[in-house]
Amino acid sequence: MAIHLADEQIEVGCGAIPPAAAQALALLLGDRFTTVRAIRDQYGRGEAYPTLLPPDAVAFPQTTVEVSAIAAICFAHGVPMVPSGAATSLEGNITAPMGGLGINLARMDRILEVNEADLDCVVEAGVTREQLNHELRAAGLFFPIDPGANATLGGMASTRASGTNAVRYGTMAHNALGLTVVQPDGTVIHTGGRARKSAAGYDLTRLYVGSEGTLGIITEVRLRLYGIPETMAAATCAFEDLAGAVNTVTQLIQIGVPVARVELLDEMQVRACNAYSALNLPEKPHLFFEFHGSKLATQEDAETALAIATGEGGSGFEWATATEDRNRLWKARHNAYFAAVALRPGAQVWSSDVCVPVSHLADAVLAVRADIDRNRLTAPIVGHVGDGNFHVLFAIDPADPAERTRAEAVYAAMIERAIAVGGSCTGEHGVGMVKGKHLVSEHGAPGVATMRAIKHALDPLGLMNPGKIFVD
Amino acid sequence: MAIHLADEQIEVGCGAIPPAAAQALALLLGDRFTTVRAIRDQYGRGEAYPTLLPPDAVAFPQTTVEVSAIAAICFAHGVPMVPSGAATSLEGNITAPMGGLGINLARMDRILEVNEADLDCVVEAGVTREQLNHELRAAGLFFPIDPGANATLGGMASTRASGTNAVRYGTMAHNALGLTVVQPDGTVIHTGGRARKSAAGYDLTRLYVGSEGTLGIITEVRLRLYGIPETMAAATCAFEDLAGAVNTVTQLIQIGVPVARVELLDEMQVRACNAYSALNLPEKPHLFFEFHGSKLATQEDAETALAIATGEGGSGFEWATATEDRNRLWKARHNAYFAAVALRPGAQVWSSDVCVPVSHLADAVLAVRADIDRNRLTAPIVGHVGDGNFHVLFAIDPADPAERTRAEAVYAAMIERAIAVGGSCTGEHGVGMVKGKHLVSEHGAPGVATMRAIKHALDPLGLMNPGKIFVD
Repeated sequence: MAIHLADEQIEVGCGAIPPAAAQALALLLGDRFTTVRAIRDQYGRGEAYPTLLPPDAVAFPQTTVEVSAIAAICFAHGVPMVPSGAATSLEGNITAPMGGLGINLARMDRILEVNEADLDCVVEAGVTREQLNHELRAAGLFFPIDPGANATLGGMASTRASGTNAVRYGTMAHNALGLTVVQPDGTVIHTGGRARKSAAGYDLTRLYVGSEGTLGIITEVRLRLYGIPETMAAATCAFEDLAGAVNTVTQLIQIGVPVARVELLDEMQVRACNAYSALNLPEKPHLFFEFHGSKLATQEDAETALAIATGEGGSGFEWATATEDRNRLWKARHNAYFAAVALRPGAQVWSSDVCVPVSHLADAVLAVRADIDRNRLTAPIVGHVGDGNFHVLFAIDPADPAERTRAEAVYAAMIERAIAVGGSCTGEHGVGMVKGKHLVSEHGAPGVATMRAIKHALDPLGLMNPGKIFVD
Repeated sequence: MAIHLADEQIEVGCGAIPPAAAQALALLLGDRFTTVRAIRDQYGRGEAYPTLLPPDAVAFPQTTVEVSAIAAICFAHGVPMVPSGAATSLEGNITAPMGGLGINLARMDRILEVNEADLDCVVEAGVTREQLNHELRAAGLFFPIDPGANATLGGMASTRASGTNAVRYGTMAHNALGLTVVQPDGTVIHTGGRARKSAAGYDLTRLYVGSEGTLGIITEVRLRLYGIPETMAAATCAFEDLAGAVNTVTQLIQIGVPVARVELLDEMQVRACNAYSALNLPEKPHLFFEFHGSKLATQEDAETALAIATGEGGSGFEWATATEDRNRLWKARHNAYFAAVALRPGAQVWSSDVCVPVSHLADAVLAVRADIDRNRLTAPIVGHVGDGNFHVLFAIDPADPAERTRAEAVYAAMIERAIAVGGSCTGEHGVGMVKGKHLVSEHGAPGVATMRAIKHALDPLGLMNPGKIFVD
């Protein structure tokens, strides 16, 4: 330990962590405080962010008390703090552009409470959604929010994650009922509660959800749970064109069919998924549906969906009711990103993210598809279209700067069009290092100034995940 | 106008509004700025709050621009601002304990947009829920949140209102998608957007929802709308005892039946409603149910509810499917407060409000019923029990201080028990002048300090609805 410490101090003293802070952290955490380059690099990028910006050291706390002590040390020494979980965020949300301490919560992976009677649970921030669902299965419960990656629930709360099921179950904003948060100076607060509703003061839970670690470190999350539905049935449906698929979704949402998932894959994405996930779908735009409920209700919902889809040129409604068939389908959908990577070996893939009002979905998807084709880009489209949320997976040749420039222009126009119709520059990936420049056009300068005032009030030294959300 | 102005200045100069501010407001608003005592008194209490604390003057703006100008004037002169709507709040939320300017938004009553395709709308803060639903009916849409009173939607957003339908449709926190807010210095911000979800920065909408006018003045609200269900069926069911009724609800929620309303009325409340609303229900504890959905789905839900209720000693399931029968039933429920007033002529009625986890509902309701009886109080119980939210309507003889003391002790114990099991001191009425003393036990001192830090950041002069939420 002593040698280890001595080793560390030299390197740590060079970053944004002064030697006294490094020593205090090492004394607190032993070998759960490290400056090993390979480990720092693991928490310096996330998924799909192009630039590696590692912290100067990484801490692996095991309890809220330890996180509080870490924060107190960092606060006293002015050390930036960058929380992380499974490191699956997409917008550089966990990078450390100003160095400082990475605080990785993955070892806080205990499920603290499951209240079957009240359909809620409390988990430490490092519990992953797959771990939680595995644990809940025996009780007949599940946690529906599913961003694709096996993210930690603390990370999902921090980025206001959602994904395929949000059209039915909402986002983390609806399903995080309470939080334990360590503030920059180490103070621990508990937000929310066990009641299904409350009008007692400001809604701190929903302020911290989606704040991407810029206000404090989420160490525990109370989550809303759901009974596993009696019936879960998935189906795929092929369309002659993109417009038919999107119009089907718009109508489904407008008449209020409580579809549990409805995912769009354009022709290029279907081709990619067929290849990557050994599917055998016709190479046409597809919708993947899932219906949850009683046998009767899912049947009724599915029939309505079928009728609408048929009216929009849909055909080949294929059912997957067996668990393994459903899982195979959704796994293929979740692997859309990796399928896009495989589509063009050697390419760099950006997963873009916008969200538009459902009535503007067809226009938004068709406009970007035309832009992609006009610019000769390889870029499949996937989307949680029931929410108006879709992603273009730009597969870019890193050796071709001109292609990169064309892709950037297509992405910028896609965001501008989304914001112009009242949509958002990010439906679910968060702001991170990437979307800050769009916040003013989405929320207006006074709105962003209000966010900054809150940031300054709760993190006066600017130590919490600096460089994220706000562009200086 | 000039004479009117001259008249005003004398009186206004005596309150918290200096003559220069009064003159500026009168010049801006003409006779929509008034110091007439009767009008000030209308906005100095709300419903059911015992003490009249009128503002020094009342302004009746008609646009966001006017509210902004009013705020700028008040900010420049240090005048407290107290927003109000239909004045139906229950916890003194609109009183002016420090005087200043009442800003009544009831004349901002235009419905600005209805987007049938996206199921959203934008209303000015003064639009009432009945007005909105009347307007929406032709389009086959409705806004479900129903606190009983015909409140304004701005007021409902401000207090995070909910009511009978929240068990199915959520509270104002779920159904306010965006806001226009005038900040203390007159700056106008727009929060949220038209997309169904967003991960773009802090969730300002949900910070202002429930902030009771202490951070800014909500002037417009974007709301989520719903298609009017194919079938809406209400039913009443009588139980031998309170425990059977409450246990029915707990089971319904636990197995996930998507009941649209499930309301508890205890024996005393049924007696009161029979008398006040000319119902003819057996004098036993009752549940009032409502089911929304397709014919098939509501039938299925109702059958499940019937089976559970029967198992818990419920009987006499009476259906009301015709609109007029349903309306009569819910009108009777909404008039529970007035029925309680009529139960004991001359009594003062406090509508208490707590919310507990559903698993603790039976204990909480039975404990307070026993306390009420032991203390020989007249106090029926009603509740939105699907959310674990219930109200004891204490009908107190104002001439009997001992009775008042006993009632206060019963109420205090009810709140303490709720908080002890992770519940809330207010499910839906808000904090106002009344619940501030319980915030620390509910949220902890550091949590309340965090709320105060936000308050100070956004209202540094402390002008917005002073004396509310926080106890000094």
